[in-house]
Amino acid sequence: MKTILITGFDPFGGEPINPAWEAVKTMDGYTDGDYKVVTQMVPTIRYKSVDTVKAAAEQCQPDFILCVGQAGGRPDITVERVAINCDDFRIPDNGGNQPEDEPVVADGPSAYFATLPIKNIVNALHQNGIPAKVSNTAGTFVCNHLMYGVCHYAAQKGNIKAGFMHIPYLPSQVVDKPNQPSMAVETVRATLETIVHVLSHGKSYEAQNITYTTPHE
Amino acid sequence: MKTILITGFDPFGGEPINPAWEAVKTMDGYTDGDYKVVTQMVPTIRYKSVDTVKAAAEQCQPDFILCVGQAGGRPDITVERVAINCDDFRIPDNGGNQPEDEPVVADGPSAYFATLPIKNIVNALHQNGIPAKVSNTAGTFVCNHLMYGVCHYAAQKGNIKAGFMHIPYLPSQVVDKPNQPSMAVETVRATLETIVHVLSHGKSYEAQNITYTTPHE
Amino acid sequence: MKTILITGFDPFGGEPINPAWEAVKTMDGYTDGDYKVVTQMVPTIRYKSVDTVKAAAEQCQPDFILCVGQAGGRPDITVERVAINCDDFRIPDNGGNQPEDEPVVADGPSAYFATLPIKNIVNALHQNGIPAKVSNTAGTFVCNHLMYGVCHYAAQKGNIKAGFMHIPYLPSQVVDKPNQPSMAVETVRATLETIVHVLSHGKSYEAQNITYTTPHE
Amino acid sequence: MKTILITGFDPFGGEPINPAWEAVKTMDGYTDGDYKVVTQMVPTIRYKSVDTVKAAAEQCQPDFILCVGQAGGRPDITVERVAINCDDFRIPDNGGNQPEDEPVVADGPSAYFATLPIKNIVNALHQNGIPAKVSNTAGTFVCNHLMYGVCHYAAQKGNIKAGFMHIPYLPSQVVDKPNQPSMAVETVRATLETIVHVLSHGKSYEAQNITYTTPHE
Repeated sequence: MKTILITGFDPFGGEPINPAWEAVKTMDGYTDGDYKVVTQMVPTIRYKSVDTVKAAAEQCQPDFILCVGQAGGRPDITVERVAINCDDFRIPDNGGNQPEDEPVVADGPSAYFATLPIKNIVNALHQNGIPAKVSNTAGTFVCNHLMYGVCHYAAQKGNIKAGFMHIPYLPSQVVDKPNQPSMAVETVRATLETIVHVLSHGKSYEAQNITYTTPHE
Repeated sequence: MKTILITGFDPFGGEPINPAWEAVKTMDGYTDGDYKVVTQMVPTIRYKSVDTVKAAAEQCQPDFILCVGQAGGRPDITVERVAINCDDFRIPDNGGNQPEDEPVVADGPSAYFATLPIKNIVNALHQNGIPAKVSNTAGTFVCNHLMYGVCHYAAQKGNIKAGFMHIPYLPSQVVDKPNQPSMAVETVRATLETIVHVLSHGKSYEAQNITYTTPHE
Repeated sequence: MKTILITGFDPFGGEPINPAWEAVKTMDGYTDGDYKVVTQMVPTIRYKSVDTVKAAAEQCQPDFILCVGQAGGRPDITVERVAINCDDFRIPDNGGNQPEDEPVVADGPSAYFATLPIKNIVNALHQNGIPAKVSNTAGTFVCNHLMYGVCHYAAQKGNIKAGFMHIPYLPSQVVDKPNQPSMAVETVRATLETIVHVLSHGKSYEAQNITYTTPHE
Repeated sequence: MKTILITGFDPFGGEPINPAWEAVKTMDGYTDGDYKVVTQMVPTIRYKSVDTVKAAAEQCQPDFILCVGQAGGRPDITVERVAINCDDFRIPDNGGNQPEDEPVVADGPSAYFATLPIKNIVNALHQNGIPAKVSNTAGTFVCNHLMYGVCHYAAQKGNIKAGFMHIPYLPSQVVDKPNQPSMAVETVRATLETIVHVLSHGKSYEAQNITYTTPHE
């Protein structure tokens, strides 16, 4: 069997849970076609996050790595197009690191593009009634750091396709945040099943008059 | 047994479904304590909407009437505080009516306040992890029209408490609407169960440092 | 000469200035046709706000009263349609009052509709390139309180038309509030001149395929 | 005298004007310290946009190039951090080009970071009461294309610092777009003067507890 490694962060920023991991952990052992899912919780800490995913990948030898993080405030599933070689943390990570305008990898390329089929994924999600789009920024915090680091690792290995997806707040997280969008864990679970299906079946999902992004995002 | 009448609109504005009715219809026959739920689909048509709810109420003799409508663009459950005596339709209703600045009820009072325990409802929803707030406007379309008309009827009857709740788009409705918030049908169902519990048990739910509304809403 | 009384609040909620008064005060003595403008600063305090406007009105005997307040978060000029008989303050006013679900005027009507020509005003603003719409809620804080109280006074006097307008944050107010809309004081000033022109000339401004409100506002 | 080249796009996407150029053109010949401003209108067309800026730069030999574009929907001035090597046009440009996932420059680096002092600029804008932040994406349309192409040119020349800034809609552009933020041309003009001051004086502007970006942008 082939393997899809899906990772989710532990909580950060004062939130009691991280919806990424809440949803991801339910997928452990899930199978679709010739593929099985392995999951891994990732610390929201510079370097250590990347090292944790690398160690898991060395263990399970995945064909695909999908890292999942939380983007509070976004209403849709956002599949990231690109990670940039920049750590500029607005707040300290869970290890107390707060780099300002430092590279993720010294002498690394300025950016990595996701090698997962991001538009196929968005199209398939739309066909399943799940709001999703391509995003052109994963920020400059640990999410971007992890995506850059994992894409760098995958580029070195050569036979792994990698990418990153942001999910919204869960409903319970916005009870005390007026006017913030959220997404139910059931919808996030359906998102992960859909993506596993796309990766394991390799079909091309046709867009249906769909906007991938807004003009300036 | 006592009765809670819950109503939901049929689709309007080009949407193929109305999430209000999709969620409401699943509650028919639901019971909690001494209360049972009766549901009624309501046409998105001036006057006819009110007449439909009145006819259902004459039939089932409810203690409470909760009307449910869709407010596309709102991220939270919004429990309406007030309905105003004004029909000012931005688009025609499903019957082709498009009144401009006309009263709902000639010589009616300028507004009706909901008689359901709206803050108890919001507090109970928060305690169940569901984003919700009190809203101070139900607009001037059929939602406000229905709320006004049903409150007018309830005021005349004297023994019915009535109110209105708006729910967000369903996820499938925003696939082609970038950056719009949505709420899963599972969450709306949990909302309805919570409200039935509040109405049937009459408890006072304490607010937990919660904002009911934003300053100017 | 006839008189238009325009009022603006002093600062509240920790803001160092209130853009309403910053813009309003520049209009004192402004004339257009047979009309001159008198301005009045209003304390952001329950009752005292209404009493201040009444005293100014007794002094200047206006034909029109336009009260102006700040609605942080709104991107457009919003001309209020209705004030409701409800004081439900999310935060204390500048006098420390924080009523919860109390009437503005005991035994007053449940709501007052603005008697200013609100759609003419919105149309004229649009023709001058100023984003504006009709709003269906002035909230339940001092803004709504003042609008209700002034409309109540105007109804008793019989020969005064009254209304309320919300303006956005000024740009300087959102420097530390990421992603909040704002409006330059120059644009607010142009708004006030346009409204004075509408009130003093009494023309009917035709809408140009314009949406006054969104469906559920 | 030294030179700052500031460019603005001509209109696109059905808009009758482009606020970028409306504001930029007023700066032609403006001086501050040892610097004078040269302005250039740029066609919203793939390649031709970059060639136009290159030709202007060969003519005026600037020390700094600041390209300005419109990002409808953003409420703040957004100073771009990075341009990516990807043309993925949601709509055709003014020349009818609509590339999908093509590089801006074949075999170019995956991204260029702005070499203008973007945080100094944001800090100085804040100190002048202008809402601004660093943005981590210029999209994948002509704005990103131009920023990438100009940064590529500047990197080849070696002695030019380059960057890109997005400005919001003008107020007149959102009259028929409910709930869209805008910024007055006076504020955009003040923005440009502030940036010219930063570039010509080279001071370091200290941040004042300011958020440059939101976590996931």
